[in-house]
Amino acid sequence: MNETADKAPIDFWFDFSSPYGYLLAEKIDDVAARHGRKVRWHPILLGVIFQATGSRPPADGSSARAKYVYRDFHRSARHMGIPYNPPSRFPLPTQNAARAYYWLHGQDCALARQFAHAVYRAFFVDDLDISSPDTVLDIAGKLGVDRETLAAALQSPEIKARLKDECEQALATGVFGSPHVIIDGEHFFGADRLPQIEHWLESGGF
Amino acid sequence: MNETADKAPIDFWFDFSSPYGYLLAEKIDDVAARHGRKVRWHPILLGVIFQATGSRPPADGSSARAKYVYRDFHRSARHMGIPYNPPSRFPLPTQNAARAYYWLHGQDCALARQFAHAVYRAFFVDDLDISSPDTVLDIAGKLGVDRETLAAALQSPEIKARLKDECEQALATGVFGSPHVIIDGEHFFGADRLPQIEHWLESGGF
Repeated sequence: MNETADKAPIDFWFDFSSPYGYLLAEKIDDVAARHGRKVRWHPILLGVIFQATGSRPPADGSSARAKYVYRDFHRSARHMGIPYNPPSRFPLPTQNAARAYYWLHGQDCALARQFAHAVYRAFFVDDLDISSPDTVLDIAGKLGVDRETLAAALQSPEIKARLKDECEQALATGVFGSPHVIIDGEHFFGADRLPQIEHWLESGGF
Repeated sequence: MNETADKAPIDFWFDFSSPYGYLLAEKIDDVAARHGRKVRWHPILLGVIFQATGSRPPADGSSARAKYVYRDFHRSARHMGIPYNPPSRFPLPTQNAARAYYWLHGQDCALARQFAHAVYRAFFVDDLDISSPDTVLDIAGKLGVDRETLAAALQSPEIKARLKDECEQALATGVFGSPHVIIDGEHFFGADRLPQIEHWLESGGF
């Protein structure tokens, strides 16, 4: 365990529709905290990232790879001890959830973190349609957020611009998928890189 | 540790030009042996697999993803404690190495395994051009294999057909990349699935 008041925060880029993003979201704060680090969460839109980079989602089409990936989502969750129910609608657009996150973050960082976890669990445990503004408002409402205020915020040009900026910053930084973690300039892609992230934090690079 | 004389062997599909295949090759036999399993090695040609499935190699082009993947090859090797020197020519065609493997396997299974390790290390440690028949014959020669006999075998229709059959069997089984491991019908893709493979063998499925 290091005393690390001065250590830079870890950046965690993800899309709310990314199963591997959900899995890493359930672990990253605890792993970072064990090494005296904070995590900055950045929801982004994978559609924007894929369009700009020419990348494809892991579970694209009905190929052998796609069949494998759907199975691996579930198996990886069991391996990591995380509840997971394959959503009946997948993937989903996530701009409402991401915008709500950034607005909440401007009000209360800890609340935004609770909201992010709640959105992921709503999608990957409770099979809710997180693309719907109503669902997003319901999730925030349960955390004590005023529904009308948030509904208005989701339509504000500032919040729309903030999400657009985050996606552009992700691309400029070399983010090409979800989850994508950056520690002191070192990039780690995928929930399966968690052991390497822990190794890196423990050893200060290897 | 299980007493498992009856347990089915594990199938390990790989291309000799695959860095993650090399990393898993250095570990898979020991992990399997700890759970009373043998491993059947199947070198195949990723070019054939990619053409048939429409998949792409992980380090394709000069994108942010490709740059990441080159870095991750090396970092994953360090993480796993395996020597790795990025080859100066990459990727390389591997039909000569794969054909030599299958011919040797017909003579002596243990020798074929030694040869496979030697080919991978020649490429990923000593930076040799394993696409060249001469290099392949040199590697086998050091293991006591008669050079002329193997040179003739590499041109035999039987050995060419064997490699073609293995690639077709891979596709029919749902193999879409390298390394690809199948345990009792369960598929594991990538060297980073080694912890899940161990978990699976230990628990008999999870």
